Amino acid sequence: MRGTMLYGPRDVRSEERPDPTIVESTDAVIRLSAACVCGSDLWPYRGADPVTQPTPMGHEYVGIVEEVGSEVRLIEPGQFVVGSFFASDNTCEICRAGYQSSCVHRQPGAPTGAQAEYARIPLADGTLVATPGLPPEDMIPSLLAASDVLGTGWFGAVAAEAGPGKTVAVVGDGAVGLLAVLAARQLGADRIIAMSRHESRQRLAREFGATEIVTERGDAGAARIKELTGGLGAHSVVEAVGTQESMMQAIRSARPGGHVGFVGVLHGVEILGEEFFFSHVHLHGGPAPVRRFLPELIDLIWDRKIEPGKVFDLTLPLEQAAEGYRAMDERRAIKTLLHP
Amino acid sequence: MRGTMLYGPRDVRSEERPDPTIVESTDAVIRLSAACVCGSDLWPYRGADPVTQPTPMGHEYVGIVEEVGSEVRLIEPGQFVVGSFFASDNTCEICRAGYQSSCVHRQPGAPTGAQAEYARIPLADGTLVATPGLPPEDMIPSLLAASDVLGTGWFGAVAAEAGPGKTVAVVGDGAVGLLAVLAARQLGADRIIAMSRHESRQRLAREFGATEIVTERGDAGAARIKELTGGLGAHSVVEAVGTQESMMQAIRSARPGGHVGFVGVLHGVEILGEEFFFSHVHLHGGPAPVRRFLPELIDLIWDRKIEPGKVFDLTLPLEQAAEGYRAMDERRAIKTLLHP
Repeated sequence: MRGTMLYGPRDVRSEERPDPTIVESTDAVIRLSAACVCGSDLWPYRGADPVTQPTPMGHEYVGIVEEVGSEVRLIEPGQFVVGSFFASDNTCEICRAGYQSSCVHRQPGAPTGAQAEYARIPLADGTLVATPGLPPEDMIPSLLAASDVLGTGWFGAVAAEAGPGKTVAVVGDGAVGLLAVLAARQLGADRIIAMSRHESRQRLAREFGATEIVTERGDAGAARIKELTGGLGAHSVVEAVGTQESMMQAIRSARPGGHVGFVGVLHGVEILGEEFFFSHVHLHGGPAPVRRFLPELIDLIWDRKIEPGKVFDLTLPLEQAAEGYRAMDERRAIKTLLHP
Repeated sequence: MRGTMLYGPRDVRSEERPDPTIVESTDAVIRLSAACVCGSDLWPYRGADPVTQPTPMGHEYVGIVEEVGSEVRLIEPGQFVVGSFFASDNTCEICRAGYQSSCVHRQPGAPTGAQAEYARIPLADGTLVATPGLPPEDMIPSLLAASDVLGTGWFGAVAAEAGPGKTVAVVGDGAVGLLAVLAARQLGADRIIAMSRHESRQRLAREFGATEIVTERGDAGAARIKELTGGLGAHSVVEAVGTQESMMQAIRSARPGGHVGFVGVLHGVEILGEEFFFSHVHLHGGPAPVRRFLPELIDLIWDRKIEPGKVFDLTLPLEQAAEGYRAMDERRAIKTLLHP
């Protein structure tokens, strides 16, 4: 089959790879209907995460089940499925508490190599959720978004306790930040302030439900949020970048007693204890337990209530994955969809 | 009047000070029934916080109202009152959300100098809570504890979401940690693990409701908590120390999705972002909004349902404040009560 490999910084190759097969009796193999490039793929692409060996890329996926292992009970061949980037059993105490991405049997980055024609999904029964039927073609991008960026933005908004009566600020205008705006809207927030200085992203933020746009960043951004909230700060802030500046911007944008939900993978960040102590902010986040939200998100998409697939503003054949990475790296594209 | 001053590291003096008077029309002046030394007073005492000039000490207090300003409506002379170490209006949006220690009109460390015979309390209506009547002598230590250490331990337990069905671990066996044990018990926690290596403090922890004691600290302590919780970690962890080691011990003792409530004033702490990201822990804390809890805590004490005053294991006349500090610094005493 054709698959996407990262050989080193900015060295993405589309090449022939062995077809995946059932390894464990709890596995499924799926044929991908669409694949995509994640903002987090840019960390190793840019050399910020080391690449020690050629690495199969891609961890967001939707597709049709080809084959299941002998112990798989809930998922069957022919179903259209959406999964999450952490394989989880969905039965352990941590999964039942809603933290499937910390499942005691979790397999991070599973599947490895979903920017491909086929993928092996471990713990299929716990990881995959089947849609009510085969989706129409135009719905596939939205279902693909549910697999990671929508689920992650949603978790950010939930962790930030976005809801009725709340003012929500979103730091980061990548696909996750934009979908955190959509999530905050669905969760019933009163005011949603998107922090972005890119016109096309501002437009999509407004389409997803942002009521205001703030173009300042860092401390100036936080000061602007305070200004817009009677000097107090936002009730809820979603951090969807993962740098020192963006994290402190998020904490400084929240009011005392407010909530920061952070979903940008933190890179070299140190949260200053004393400032955080006096901020009185709640802090919660991490790798999104997308599986917790999948049934609800699939329903919303199936019923055409949300269209998160709009974040894909570049579509390429799988063979041109390298161009998909380049376009996102240069911020020419918000998110690239790859057609196998 | 007699008051306590800190002139520099380990230089505590009891001396004549001017009697406090009404300055603002929202002030009250109270005659202290008892005063005490706080764990946080040891930071400047030990030189960890700089002392640039002779400083009046003491911010925990109970007493009888002597005089009130012209705008005070709810508090009147003759009442026995308990207050908190942050003066707050109790009417702003932040106060109404339960974060009185971040009140938009807050006056930190108010009153300054409560290790004295009299103290001026700003924003008396918002800050002070009157007891149902004059308390019996033996109840005064418990009411005094409500002013800070009980309210702080209580906030730690609330921030850690201690409650029925939960296993709670408490890092720190000072007065605040011990009273976080008492709070967790009152909040209905199933298991309460006190982390302490001092026999007298272990005994008091058990008396307050601890079901288990862990003597290891740091990473060994966190590993022991995981061992006692099926490898998962505690649902709720209260951090009541404020150092880098104790904070990371608290985060590492909590399960994914669990809650860390931190109330030890963080000194030079940097929370490691990447580890915190993958911990999936909720983090909340800061200077306790004691005022939020005072009515409930006073009721529990008045009805003799709790006796937090047991943390005072040394009682001295006000003039001997210096010995009170020494005894706590050398860990000969958990907490010193001073009689004016």
